Amino acid sequence: MSYHWAIVGLGTVAEEFATAITQADLPIYAVQSRSPEKGEAFAKRFQIPKVYSSYQELLEDPTIDIIYLATPHAFHYQMVKEALQHQKHVFCEKAITVDAKELAELIEISKENQCLLAEGTTIFYMPLYQKLKEYQPQFGKLKMVQANFGSFKEDKEDNRFFSPKDAGGALLDIGPYAFGICQYFMTSSPKVFASTVEYHPSGVDESSCTILKNDHEELASINLTFRAKMPKRAIVAFEKGYLTIDDYPRATSATFTTPDGTNYLIETKDTTHAFVHEYQTMNHWLEQGSVSSPFISNVLQIMQLFDSCRQQWK
Amino acid sequence: MSYHWAIVGLGTVAEEFATAITQADLPIYAVQSRSPEKGEAFAKRFQIPKVYSSYQELLEDPTIDIIYLATPHAFHYQMVKEALQHQKHVFCEKAITVDAKELAELIEISKENQCLLAEGTTIFYMPLYQKLKEYQPQFGKLKMVQANFGSFKEDKEDNRFFSPKDAGGALLDIGPYAFGICQYFMTSSPKVFASTVEYHPSGVDESSCTILKNDHEELASINLTFRAKMPKRAIVAFEKGYLTIDDYPRATSATFTTPDGTNYLIETKDTTHAFVHEYQTMNHWLEQGSVSSPFISNVLQIMQLFDSCRQQWK
Repeated sequence: MSYHWAIVGLGTVAEEFATAITQADLPIYAVQSRSPEKGEAFAKRFQIPKVYSSYQELLEDPTIDIIYLATPHAFHYQMVKEALQHQKHVFCEKAITVDAKELAELIEISKENQCLLAEGTTIFYMPLYQKLKEYQPQFGKLKMVQANFGSFKEDKEDNRFFSPKDAGGALLDIGPYAFGICQYFMTSSPKVFASTVEYHPSGVDESSCTILKNDHEELASINLTFRAKMPKRAIVAFEKGYLTIDDYPRATSATFTTPDGTNYLIETKDTTHAFVHEYQTMNHWLEQGSVSSPFISNVLQIMQLFDSCRQQWK
Repeated sequence: MSYHWAIVGLGTVAEEFATAITQADLPIYAVQSRSPEKGEAFAKRFQIPKVYSSYQELLEDPTIDIIYLATPHAFHYQMVKEALQHQKHVFCEKAITVDAKELAELIEISKENQCLLAEGTTIFYMPLYQKLKEYQPQFGKLKMVQANFGSFKEDKEDNRFFSPKDAGGALLDIGPYAFGICQYFMTSSPKVFASTVEYHPSGVDESSCTILKNDHEELASINLTFRAKMPKRAIVAFEKGYLTIDDYPRATSATFTTPDGTNYLIETKDTTHAFVHEYQTMNHWLEQGSVSSPFISNVLQIMQLFDSCRQQWK
C-alpha cells in the first residue's frame, strides 16, 4: 500500500529528501511552507500535488498519513505533538526534541493516538548496521567504541547552527550520529561518565568530549566539534579485532581488522539513498501494523545521554 | 666525536635497538646482562666489545658515556639514579619512571651531576613532528586532538604487560605516545579533565578513556586498551583543517585535510630507523654540550597527567 507523505520545513534537508524520494519514483503527496511561493516552487519541482501554507490546514487534511518534519529542532516538540494529536504518523528529523522529557511526553502521546513516531538518525535505517549486528557475536567481547564527528560551520551571525533560539550546537546536530553509533554497539545501556564542553560565544556548545561507560566493562569516547573538520569515523574495538566505519552516518561498508592486521570488508552493496531507506522503513512498519518505532527507545536513551552531558557542563 | 653507549636490559626492545644501530654502522660499546651467556651471545651477534654481568661493574667502566636502559619500567628509577650518580648520561626507554615524583627527583640528580637524562618516547625524535610544528601556525587555531592506541596483549599469567610488579598496564606502556602527541600539539599545558579505567584482573589498567583540556580552549581525547587492537591514529583538528597521523609513534608522513576535502601530504622522506634518530639526537645534544634534554619537561608533564588519571581512577 502507498502512504501519503507530507513534508514540512522546506530547507536543505527537505530538498535532499524530496530529491532522493522522487528519483526513486516514490510519491510525496503534500508540502507546507509559510511562504506560498516557496511551497509552490518546491511542489512544482518535485511534482507534489498538494501545497499548504498553514501547518494547521495540512494537519486537517485526512488524506495525509505521515508527516516528515524537517524544521529546526526547536520547533519539533510542538509540531510533533500537534501532528500526533491529529492522528498523523510522524517521521521527524534528528534531533527529535531538545531533551528527554519532551521526547518521553511525545512517546506517550504517540501511544495514546496509536500513531507511529520515528526519528531520522540515519544509522538506524542503513542495512549495514543490521548486518554488523548479525556479525557482532563473532567479534568477541566489545571493549571500546570511539566516534568522532567534526563539521566546520562558518562563524556567521545568522548561522542557525550557532543560534540558541534554533536549539543550535553540536550535540543536538551531529551528536545523534556519534552517540547513536556508540549506543548501538554497546551491549548494555551506557551512562555518561564525563563530558566537557567549549561554548561558542553565542552560548551553544561548539565542541565537546564525552566518555560513556556501561556495566559490561565497555567504554566509549565521543568527540564533536562545529569549528573544525574531523572525519566521521567510528572505531568499534572487540577482543578479536576492530571495525572501522568511515562516514558512519550513511556507511554501506565497514572493515574488520584482526590483531594480525588482516582486513575483512563487510559491505551491503547497497546503492539506495539513505532517505529512501527511511521512507521505505516507515512504510514497512505501517504495513505491518506497527505503531511504535523499534528505535524510539534508542533515541530516548540518546536524549537522556545528552541531558547528562548538559548536566555535567553546568 | 663518538660516544660510548652501553645497553642494559637485553629483551626484545634492546634487540631492535642494537639491530637498527649496527645496521646504521654506528658503534655500541658494551652490554650488560645478569646471564653471562645471554650477554655474550648478544655481544657477539652485534659485535659489541664489552660484556658485563653486573650493573655495578658496568657503572664503574669510565669509558662508558651513555647508558641505554631497556629494562622494565619498575626498574628504571633505581637504575637511572645510580647511572647518573656514576656520571653517566642516560637514555631510558619509556616510561622513564612510574610517576612524576620519581622523575622530578631524577631530573634534579641529573642536574647535580651535569648528566643528560632523556626518555625514548619515539615521537619526540621523529623529524616529522618538528616539520608539523613548523607548519602548525598555518593550520589556524587548534580545536581538538584525538589519539587512540589499542594493542592486543595475550592474557597469559606470565605476561609482563599485565604484571603489577613490572609496573604493567596500558597507561605506562602505550600511554606515553598517546598523551605525548596530544601534549605536543596543545599550545598550553593540558590538565586531565576526566579519566576512567577498566582494570585487568591482575590489578593493572587494561583500558582507559581520558579527556584533556587546557586554558586555550583546546580539548583532547585519548583511548588506550591492551585487550583489543585499535589503530595508532591521531587526528589533530584545527580551524583550517585536520591532520591525520597514522601509526603516529614512528610516522614519517601525515595528511592535512581542509574542510572542502582537499588532502595535502606532509612527509619527511625519512628512512632512518626511529632508534637511529634517538641515538644520533642524544649524541648531537652531547656534542653541543647540552646536559638537559629539551623534551624532559614534556615527559615530566606526561607523568603528571598519568598521576592525575590514577588519582581519578581511585
